[in-house]
Amino acid sequence: MSHPPIDQAPAWQALAGHAETVRGRHLRELFADQRRGLDFSRRAAGLTLDLSKQRWCHETLGLLLDLAREARMPEAIEALLSGQHVNISEDRPALHTALRLPEEASLVVDGNDVVPGVHESLAKMGTMVERLHASQWRGATGRPIHDVVNLGVGGSDLGPLMVTHALADYRPDDVPHIDVHFASTMDGSQLVDYLSRFNPETTLFVISSKSFTTIDTLSNARTAQDWLMTRLVKEGNARVDESMVMRQHFIGVSAKPDKMTKWGIAESSQLEFWEWVGGRYSLWGAIGLPIALVIGMKNFRDLLAGAHAMDRHFAAAPLADNLPVLLALAGIWNANFLGIRAHSILPYDGRLEYFAAYLEQLEMESNGKSATHEGHEVNYSTCPVLWGQLGPNAQHAFYQLLHQGTQPVVCDFIAPLRRYDEVKDDATRAHLKAQHRLTLANCFAQSRLLMLGDDAIDEPGERPGHKRYRGNQPSTTLLLDRLTPATLGALIALYEHKVYVQATIWGINPFDQWGVELGKQIAGETGDMLANHAGHERMDASTRALIEAVWQAEAAGEE
Amino acid sequence: MSHPPIDQAPAWQALAGHAETVRGRHLRELFADQRRGLDFSRRAAGLTLDLSKQRWCHETLGLLLDLAREARMPEAIEALLSGQHVNISEDRPALHTALRLPEEASLVVDGNDVVPGVHESLAKMGTMVERLHASQWRGATGRPIHDVVNLGVGGSDLGPLMVTHALADYRPDDVPHIDVHFASTMDGSQLVDYLSRFNPETTLFVISSKSFTTIDTLSNARTAQDWLMTRLVKEGNARVDESMVMRQHFIGVSAKPDKMTKWGIAESSQLEFWEWVGGRYSLWGAIGLPIALVIGMKNFRDLLAGAHAMDRHFAAAPLADNLPVLLALAGIWNANFLGIRAHSILPYDGRLEYFAAYLEQLEMESNGKSATHEGHEVNYSTCPVLWGQLGPNAQHAFYQLLHQGTQPVVCDFIAPLRRYDEVKDDATRAHLKAQHRLTLANCFAQSRLLMLGDDAIDEPGERPGHKRYRGNQPSTTLLLDRLTPATLGALIALYEHKVYVQATIWGINPFDQWGVELGKQIAGETGDMLANHAGHERMDASTRALIEAVWQAEAAGEE
Repeated sequence: MSHPPIDQAPAWQALAGHAETVRGRHLRELFADQRRGLDFSRRAAGLTLDLSKQRWCHETLGLLLDLAREARMPEAIEALLSGQHVNISEDRPALHTALRLPEEASLVVDGNDVVPGVHESLAKMGTMVERLHASQWRGATGRPIHDVVNLGVGGSDLGPLMVTHALADYRPDDVPHIDVHFASTMDGSQLVDYLSRFNPETTLFVISSKSFTTIDTLSNARTAQDWLMTRLVKEGNARVDESMVMRQHFIGVSAKPDKMTKWGIAESSQLEFWEWVGGRYSLWGAIGLPIALVIGMKNFRDLLAGAHAMDRHFAAAPLADNLPVLLALAGIWNANFLGIRAHSILPYDGRLEYFAAYLEQLEMESNGKSATHEGHEVNYSTCPVLWGQLGPNAQHAFYQLLHQGTQPVVCDFIAPLRRYDEVKDDATRAHLKAQHRLTLANCFAQSRLLMLGDDAIDEPGERPGHKRYRGNQPSTTLLLDRLTPATLGALIALYEHKVYVQATIWGINPFDQWGVELGKQIAGETGDMLANHAGHERMDASTRALIEAVWQAEAAGEE
Repeated sequence: MSHPPIDQAPAWQALAGHAETVRGRHLRELFADQRRGLDFSRRAAGLTLDLSKQRWCHETLGLLLDLAREARMPEAIEALLSGQHVNISEDRPALHTALRLPEEASLVVDGNDVVPGVHESLAKMGTMVERLHASQWRGATGRPIHDVVNLGVGGSDLGPLMVTHALADYRPDDVPHIDVHFASTMDGSQLVDYLSRFNPETTLFVISSKSFTTIDTLSNARTAQDWLMTRLVKEGNARVDESMVMRQHFIGVSAKPDKMTKWGIAESSQLEFWEWVGGRYSLWGAIGLPIALVIGMKNFRDLLAGAHAMDRHFAAAPLADNLPVLLALAGIWNANFLGIRAHSILPYDGRLEYFAAYLEQLEMESNGKSATHEGHEVNYSTCPVLWGQLGPNAQHAFYQLLHQGTQPVVCDFIAPLRRYDEVKDDATRAHLKAQHRLTLANCFAQSRLLMLGDDAIDEPGERPGHKRYRGNQPSTTLLLDRLTPATLGALIALYEHKVYVQATIWGINPFDQWGVELGKQIAGETGDMLANHAGHERMDASTRALIEAVWQAEAAGEE
């Protein structure tokens, strides 16, 4: 796998030269080509990807496809999907795509077919969901569970949170209502609110942590456990004992069953997944339990099927028609050749409220890296800063900077073509459909204005400086036919694979996260200093002063 | 007010030269100075600002203070606070600071003392809050209001949302519970969820819009109105008529009373504010109604008092000790001299979950501009891209990019020194205090690691490429003594004034937002095309295709 650095590849050099000529051309000139809208659009798995508002032309795309071939993209895609050890620094495969393989498929990795295990795990999860939905899973005092709190952070939080929010309309009608909540913050903020409101008899906690050592999650779990034991055992019914609480009020989800057992999770309450699933790629299996609790197993399987449809497209479509490849190449062009270092994610659908936060992790944790597989520092930009907000809300918040700021930003506009068909009341449906159409109008208007600037309107004469829009800001528009479990699955898989394609070109490993390890170690040391009132004298002057400020505040609090 | 461009000022030139020498020095070298921690820290209004981890030295700060003086900062501060027309393009003052002046103060602007009006408005708001808290404000069928839904977006949403979330612990114990909710999205997503769950008899809507023309908000209001009329008048008790619904179920908050009246809001249900309050600076008055409903008027007045304490500090403190000035200068140094174009906001307190979203608007909508007061295009960077997330959560999401990415980012770490003193149960308090300490340990550890990189640990030998941390990433640490209404008020005012100081140096107007106007106009045209199935042929090829895709989807839905 030893390559020369990608910026020495012929296609990279050609792109650098080509960029010199393209950089001076305004998007409005590129749109003189009337076929551009269709030429740069592609469809797959219920999604339409319009890349015509990127600041590129046919020649650019041709060179970018050369670059992908020089980075041996077809081989890399095959390596990912077939279970080769693409996570090189940790010497293991990255097999989130295996989590969505159909039951009849087979995928032999390091000598074992992983598919039967995946479907066993789904079946175990399905049984849990069914028991909870049927009110058969009861708390220690015999009452059915009403509130489920997911304790998890990062990959054990953002995926389930985003998807349950996006697909809340798909809650099955025929099961008793279970409310699913998320507590992720280390400081206990969300948890303390839940504990003040929920009934311990009917509350169940899902402890989600791949390593089962995540201190944020285990701190919350310990606080929750104490609350249950105090309320149900010490102060409660004498017939409830601690083992009943542990069995009936906790589910563990982890790749480390021994650690779950040691913590006290009953074996029947454990869901296991595998080292070869990265945390930020893990919503497709056991970590998705909160999703399945909200939308039911049938819809959860539709989510998997949608992602699998995108996987098949990724595997089979020629590079020039391959959605993840094209989306990735647009990003490479912007980051490495146009020098655009900020990327905004703007869904025009309130249900996708957490999609930007989800992608922030997926992209920045995967590709916010600067060491190649060989350990060399890259000479080029990798992942840009990525952030977002619901598009219509961001129009009232930070679009000012997009239109008139000094910094170029590339935007992804995301919207469903159809919505609100299922609303029963005629008048309400008509109102809501009008709101949906208004939202689409805003979506299309904004990308057009970013592209054309002042030329988007017919107005004679020059506008004064503070009213001028320079335009020429590139964007991608991604349309979902409708927002369903299947199209959402395809959408997420599209971005997962985009990240992989970019990592392949940049020569970095998107599946490790060594950049978050040292912080944990140093936080542990700092925590010891804070607690023991000692050891801080070898810290820098700032850290020393900060630690002393805490001690002073603690002393003041005890007076 | 005509100046030469600031980048031609002597201090700017001196800073540019000075940056050449500083740029090569690693933060770890700068910390050889053991007094640095204290030398670059300042306190005011319950906040401690530690700027020692900025990549600067005493000489830098001296030159930056020269720059502030060359930009006539003391005069600019005086102009803002005394009500001069600092919003030049709209020829009016920007008087959010007047909203937090004490009752005995006086501020004569354009010939009138604005303070009595401010306190009249607060009194009217207080009466509404009192009536709602006392269950005297009842719905049309006579039942007390239980759910209040704020319909607003941008400045009419982000401030109230952020503050009610941050101060939820300050809910008064002695008033019946009113739940406050927020619906901002144009597509009706949040609203439709509320309508499916709330009882129309006990639900009140607050329509918040400075112009009372915001289409996002008025669309939601129209859908809500129809829902109320259908449920309460058409299908409901025969004794309820439309005017009762309008009077009892809607409050309007706007600078346009005539438009509120025209929409049907009863005069007694109107709260008015002033053209001289910018939307994103408006939570301090009538727009703050949802805040007062959650925390009560006494706490709301404490919030104002905290902001006013920061205003007084801003007015009186020498530039070299002035928190907003120093925070702003650090930003200027990073954006204009170190070339750092991304800024991350990282609160280590779950209650500040929406603080980053709030600042995204405050900073990017205020200073995401490129035209000077004279209408010239600037030759230098203005507002960087700003984004954030709760710090501990971001550690599991995008800190990878902060530590090992290719793009420099400056971070603001924000944390309260003390917390959880008021938790009654001893064991729970001990657990939660430990979680708070853990959170502080993480906060301090991360800024230290960003600063030092690999040198933050004692480990012999060189680390392999993928485990290397380069460090030298600047950050600010902001400590609140505790998170209270007063310190939160001071914190928000600190950032408001920081934005003003930066705008003053950049020579731009932070109080207009011309960059969001054209989008509204074009969205209207696009909406007409979508609805009328005509007019799109004069659009660009991409917009045409997108519009046609919507029509096809609509046709398919009707089959």
